[in-house]
Amino acid sequence: MSELDFINYIRNRNRSSNDVLGIGDDAAILNSAGLTTAVIATDMILEGKHFNLSNDPLDLIGRKALAVNLSDIAAMGARPKYALVSLGLPENMGMNAAKQMWEGLQQLADDFKIQIIGGDTNSWTGGLVINVCVIGQSHERGCVKRSGAKIGDSIFVTGALGGSLHSGHHLTFTPRVKEVGKLLDVTLPTSMIDITDGLARDLTHICEESGVGANLSSSCLPVSKRISQDLNQQDQIRSVLFDGEDFELLFTVPLAEERIISKNFPEFFKLGTITDQMKMTLDSVPLKIEGFEHKF
Amino acid sequence: MSELDFINYIRNRNRSSNDVLGIGDDAAILNSAGLTTAVIATDMILEGKHFNLSNDPLDLIGRKALAVNLSDIAAMGARPKYALVSLGLPENMGMNAAKQMWEGLQQLADDFKIQIIGGDTNSWTGGLVINVCVIGQSHERGCVKRSGAKIGDSIFVTGALGGSLHSGHHLTFTPRVKEVGKLLDVTLPTSMIDITDGLARDLTHICEESGVGANLSSSCLPVSKRISQDLNQQDQIRSVLFDGEDFELLFTVPLAEERIISKNFPEFFKLGTITDQMKMTLDSVPLKIEGFEHKF
Repeated sequence: MSELDFINYIRNRNRSSNDVLGIGDDAAILNSAGLTTAVIATDMILEGKHFNLSNDPLDLIGRKALAVNLSDIAAMGARPKYALVSLGLPENMGMNAAKQMWEGLQQLADDFKIQIIGGDTNSWTGGLVINVCVIGQSHERGCVKRSGAKIGDSIFVTGALGGSLHSGHHLTFTPRVKEVGKLLDVTLPTSMIDITDGLARDLTHICEESGVGANLSSSCLPVSKRISQDLNQQDQIRSVLFDGEDFELLFTVPLAEERIISKNFPEFFKLGTITDQMKMTLDSVPLKIEGFEHKF
Repeated sequence: MSELDFINYIRNRNRSSNDVLGIGDDAAILNSAGLTTAVIATDMILEGKHFNLSNDPLDLIGRKALAVNLSDIAAMGARPKYALVSLGLPENMGMNAAKQMWEGLQQLADDFKIQIIGGDTNSWTGGLVINVCVIGQSHERGCVKRSGAKIGDSIFVTGALGGSLHSGHHLTFTPRVKEVGKLLDVTLPTSMIDITDGLARDLTHICEESGVGANLSSSCLPVSKRISQDLNQQDQIRSVLFDGEDFELLFTVPLAEERIISKNFPEFFKLGTITDQMKMTLDSVPLKIEGFEHKF
């Protein structure tokens, strides 16, 4: 396939707006006057690691590349506005396949009014690689970091957890951009993160950055319908805690704000409480967490 | 290697400054008040395409990943300030090799006072991939696009051309960030681009975006010492025109500004003149250009 033809295709799908110089120069130009505080995230998805090129629909692979970045911006309490997309396309991937992949990404961009302002297109002998960098605008109430959780805060999650990779949900999830906008309209969470490494590990990130601990209540854990009903209860809880790639948002609010959340967001779940124990517990029993994080 | 250990290594090398929330959250936060107009570029380099993992020194591979992006920001007339770095590391690449690669990138970042504010680290079964996204600040005089060249403008380049890939110069070049700062202190070029696809193709980009043509004078073409002296004159000129990855800046200024350039930048070369011919000529003879561009 011709890189130039594909770039022209992308360029035609993304005409520049008045406040931005987009595709077609060495770099994009943004008038930052509108971005009081800019929030910037980047995520790379790789063939065989984050998707399976032979099984997963191409449009959903493209969609995921953008969706994971929108989730990161949402996790800061911000609204995504612009994206830059770098591609490493396998040499034997035809133009039609590349367009199919792109249309999944573009459709999600259109749905969330994200403007694609630049990128870099390459074909190479390796597997499919998509890197997206997203720039967002903070909510007027501020940004939400991982580091602000306080002892006694209540821990919430925006939806049920577990079974995402197994079920294909990791390719089709809706990044919680709209929910975050509504959430920050009513309160400013003390901390927030999106669940990529699994509830247990991502809550650990909040605890480490905030210098606190957390206790989860097993009876409160929201078991997704994506988890096989054949699993016994213990394995279902393990799935909720460790599966990863749920892309729900995990956040904390002061106890006094709990009713604001319950009233405005009946679909959210309370999971437990921030503690002074400097470790994570489930029903007050220490929880062992294996594995690693992959983000910075 | 452990992704977490490597991320912590990078994080320790890049402590956040006061005006930025950097590594360690879902996204970076920038106070945009200082960035009147933000300029943003992204470039991905891939094993076997932009570097050779078995022959090229690891630190120079890391260095190149950042350098090509600094060159893009310079080509807009802007000053690079922040970078986000996404990595696809081969599973069999050890921690020491990864650190060596990183140190080349970090050293260049330090030299140009670029702050690494975020990224994404992954190991996978494929080849080495590095994506960098750089955010810069425009010069108070403005930004320089590809699209502003006017008939009669003089065409300049910041240094000699040719033989870059062959000689390894593509791994060691100095991005023209400082030169651009000085250049915009004295004048605002009408158009500018960095030479990645070769002089002929990149000048074509300027001509296409500006709706003009260009005539080059063969006697003015600056032949780099990197080009083999064994080549005959015709092949040397071919090298200057088509080799690519020189990472010098090609720019145009009104004829009346020519003396400002000659006086302040004796090391720059005048190559020719912008014409109304809507095509590229060498000594007024049409120039045939093959190949494709790879950027957008």
